[in-house]
Amino acid sequence: MDPCDTPRRPGRPRGLDSICREKLLAAALPAFARHGFDGVSLRAIARAAGFDASMVSHHFGSKADLWYAVVEQLALEFQADLEDSALGVAGPQPVWQRLAAVVDHMVDRLAARPAVVMLVSREINDPSPRLDFLVEHLLRPAYLHYAPLWREGMEAGVFHQTDPAVFHLSFFGAVAMALSAQEVIGRITGQPMDADRLKQEIRRAMLGDAAPD
Amino acid sequence: MDPCDTPRRPGRPRGLDSICREKLLAAALPAFARHGFDGVSLRAIARAAGFDASMVSHHFGSKADLWYAVVEQLALEFQADLEDSALGVAGPQPVWQRLAAVVDHMVDRLAARPAVVMLVSREINDPSPRLDFLVEHLLRPAYLHYAPLWREGMEAGVFHQTDPAVFHLSFFGAVAMALSAQEVIGRITGQPMDADRLKQEIRRAMLGDAAPD
Repeated sequence: MDPCDTPRRPGRPRGLDSICREKLLAAALPAFARHGFDGVSLRAIARAAGFDASMVSHHFGSKADLWYAVVEQLALEFQADLEDSALGVAGPQPVWQRLAAVVDHMVDRLAARPAVVMLVSREINDPSPRLDFLVEHLLRPAYLHYAPLWREGMEAGVFHQTDPAVFHLSFFGAVAMALSAQEVIGRITGQPMDADRLKQEIRRAMLGDAAPD
Repeated sequence: MDPCDTPRRPGRPRGLDSICREKLLAAALPAFARHGFDGVSLRAIARAAGFDASMVSHHFGSKADLWYAVVEQLALEFQADLEDSALGVAGPQPVWQRLAAVVDHMVDRLAARPAVVMLVSREINDPSPRLDFLVEHLLRPAYLHYAPLWREGMEAGVFHQTDPAVFHLSFFGAVAMALSAQEVIGRITGQPMDADRLKQEIRRAMLGDAAPD
């Protein structure tokens, strides 16, 4: 029996709850992304994680609470990325170099978690009260973080001048679609496209062959 | 009773079958887009169109045949667009003008049929034998049609130089995401974005303030 399926009691190792949470969140993200919130049951997600549905309720409450927890975790990962890495929007490096770091990072993140794009697309295309939560916790903070860099890119002539929020969503959509289309690109051209070259071509599509200032 | 729900017999008006087909295809596209092929039943689509499920089988055969018919109809609409309008890729107009016509047309089409983007994204993100059909009937013909124009745009400096297929998918993803995010753009900036201005900003994001040659 999975230890996550035993009720909490004295002597239960510390940290176990957070391991159980993580396993469940890892199963919930692709399930919500693929089938939609209404199209998937708490029972099915629990089964995919190897848990009993009652234990899911114990750890998270309702299906809605599980969905919110999935988005909260994505928001935490996004915050951690911003703190850990060289993804400062401002900085001593020339703008093309900061932009390249941001594009490469976005490509790596979305390639590793394709379900994120599907989850966001679903909610954007089929608005519900969940979209407010997604906007507040993930979409708005991401926009506010990157907008100054997009503006700098426009001033430097890397991007066309346009509304920064329209640009931000276009940018995300462009990277996400190109990345998820790796197989399709190979099929429509008859030339297989490998992941490394795709990453390079996405960077060129977004930034051109920007050279050091 | 809907006349589409009566079996074919002598005296049945000509053209009725095609009206029934259209009603069903109109219900099937958003259903497949929203719930996915596996997430929706032939019965539910029939109900949405006001038909009996057995009549759907009569008109289309299986659920898979209905899905293929949806994509075939999109392919026919795409071909009709290309023949009817000023969307020639080559032409006497300067490249910026042909590009503007293409972007405006793409925005209008996708705004009117948001389900198309979801249908395509679903199949790209969750490949099945259906993806072959989608590539062959819609994605590949669209790419082959537009690629020369994308190349011309790159040569003219409107776009960065990159692989045309990667560019094509990025372009489609950028327009589709920005368009579906109209509400979200208003929420992340605190400034409502109306449809006309969004269209204008998408064009600027893709093409810049291109002026007559």
